Amino acid sequence: MSKFILPPKEGVPFVSVQAMAKMIHDYGVEQCIADLVDALEQDFLRWEQFEKSSRFASHSKDGVIELMPVSDGEMFACKYVNGHPINTKRDLQTVAAMGILSDVDTGYPILLTEMCILTALRTAATSAMLAKRCAPKGAKTLALIGNGAQSEFQALGMKAVVGISEVRLYDVDSTASQKTADNLADSGLNVVICRTVEDAVAGADIITTCTADKKNATILRDGNVKKGIFINAIGGDCPGKTELDGNILMRADRVIVEFEPQSRIEGEIQQLSPEFPVIEFHHILKGEVSARESDDDLVIFDGVGFASEDFTALVFLRDLIREQGEYEVLDMITQQADPKNLYSVVKDHSVTPTIAIA
Amino acid sequence: MSKFILPPKEGVPFVSVQAMAKMIHDYGVEQCIADLVDALEQDFLRWEQFEKSSRFASHSKDGVIELMPVSDGEMFACKYVNGHPINTKRDLQTVAAMGILSDVDTGYPILLTEMCILTALRTAATSAMLAKRCAPKGAKTLALIGNGAQSEFQALGMKAVVGISEVRLYDVDSTASQKTADNLADSGLNVVICRTVEDAVAGADIITTCTADKKNATILRDGNVKKGIFINAIGGDCPGKTELDGNILMRADRVIVEFEPQSRIEGEIQQLSPEFPVIEFHHILKGEVSARESDDDLVIFDGVGFASEDFTALVFLRDLIREQGEYEVLDMITQQADPKNLYSVVKDHSVTPTIAIA
Repeated sequence: MSKFILPPKEGVPFVSVQAMAKMIHDYGVEQCIADLVDALEQDFLRWEQFEKSSRFASHSKDGVIELMPVSDGEMFACKYVNGHPINTKRDLQTVAAMGILSDVDTGYPILLTEMCILTALRTAATSAMLAKRCAPKGAKTLALIGNGAQSEFQALGMKAVVGISEVRLYDVDSTASQKTADNLADSGLNVVICRTVEDAVAGADIITTCTADKKNATILRDGNVKKGIFINAIGGDCPGKTELDGNILMRADRVIVEFEPQSRIEGEIQQLSPEFPVIEFHHILKGEVSARESDDDLVIFDGVGFASEDFTALVFLRDLIREQGEYEVLDMITQQADPKNLYSVVKDHSVTPTIAIA
Repeated sequence: MSKFILPPKEGVPFVSVQAMAKMIHDYGVEQCIADLVDALEQDFLRWEQFEKSSRFASHSKDGVIELMPVSDGEMFACKYVNGHPINTKRDLQTVAAMGILSDVDTGYPILLTEMCILTALRTAATSAMLAKRCAPKGAKTLALIGNGAQSEFQALGMKAVVGISEVRLYDVDSTASQKTADNLADSGLNVVICRTVEDAVAGADIITTCTADKKNATILRDGNVKKGIFINAIGGDCPGKTELDGNILMRADRVIVEFEPQSRIEGEIQQLSPEFPVIEFHHILKGEVSARESDDDLVIFDGVGFASEDFTALVFLRDLIREQGEYEVLDMITQQADPKNLYSVVKDHSVTPTIAIA
């Protein structure tokens, strides 16, 4: 099948927020995350094929703007994403993201899309993919610390892929916990709103931390964490932004990362020495290193989000819109008959409207 | 005036190829380049305010895909651009480019646009800005070696800003020269098609090389170049892609670059030792270094294209579409009432079409 959704000369398919929401709604969030886990596994198994680099980050007083490029030699993906927790006070979103997928042979864009919803899905799928291997056997209870934009996706992913049946919610903002509980009311999950972190983590097999503040915080103290569990720490993803007490990392049996050079800069491990031992996840997926050796092991995923996960999500979306057709077509690339005659596009400009709804 | 074209919640303005072509046609190519020179000068004068980095480049067998990010602390710009000379054999364009301009305070995109036409304009403006200072006094004759997509814009920029009256064209593909001559027939320029490089450069005050092949070529041999002229060498812009005989650089009185770290990798000077002396253009603009000291000086601009030039062009475009209104609106950012309730966008998805033509 062609890499292209449309022949390159017909324009660039664009997936709007509305189109994304409709497609994912119809597909089902749990099914989508489960299928994304399969796709992520296929791509992490061919880790060496990706041209990898730490993301580009432009930090400012209240936020960060990032570019996350990656290529597998066939296709090139890049996500533009910001993180501005202060935006919630301005009635704006914390994250505005867009993605581009391109054909390496021609350099032509294949797809342009909103990427806020898609990022939530791929992040939940990455967490579920890790938990599938790193959570203790028969894990049933998830503590979810931080009940913002990611929380429902995280809960549903852990249900669909790991089989958890109870979610214990905690957030400094209790209305956020209530929002998450309301959204999960029909999910089949037993949802418990907790007043303290201690209450939330009581009996949890998996603890997910996904808070948004851009600072070094201690969302989980050492005393909160017992042996034998899996911590999915995904909120710390910038220099100066961490969630875990460093002592938890020090006594963990495994600290797993995506792409070590980026995680050293952005992850929880930025608190520790550059020699602190970590394991890149692809080694676990390939069976080169075990995820855990005993029921008592404390295993931590220090997740920051890596470009190859966006690559996987963009290719997944490309295939999805082939079936569902929910896209517009952008007139983004000049189409003069003679490629060397770019000037003719301006000289003989046509006023024909070229936007089309597919 | 607000940085935003539209209030952030109304969507992201998008400028299509057709919209760009119409606006630039109505504005006039020469006027546009002249005004871009003014804007570029303002931005090069505040060079220190930009957060600068060499562009990200993903090279493949037949081409390159690049990202060019830059920020001035108020706005962030990034261009996606490829270079695939082989595409002309596939009836596709060599370059497909798009640009994004964002607000640093919120991380929200202000503008998304085609950037193939805009790049040709900003490249011609950058060349003209350099020639305005570096060409010999009273320069009237331009030799244009390489008559592809950039050539008309280069010729018109040198006419509007430097006052040249004759263009001498040379290309290994004579149909390309004929195309350029046809496009410039009504420009007021005296256009001469030449059969050899030697013929083209005879009597030229300015030589512009803008060829596309991704290889180390010798478009200009040492014997082609006399003293006292200005060479605007802009085609060599990748590792392994150069145009000038290294001896020409060695005997030049000045070799001027945009951003030295990037030019060391990509420019003509990649042929020479890392210690070969170059001057960043902003020093000349600020009067810290003279562009030339005598009529006999040989001055070379080793131009590779820098992200701040795209920044300038994107801000120029933002102001232009405020006046001309030629844009569509993309539904690119989620707009749920509670920023923490991203899940609601999928759960309660609306099927209301949100694309609008402004």
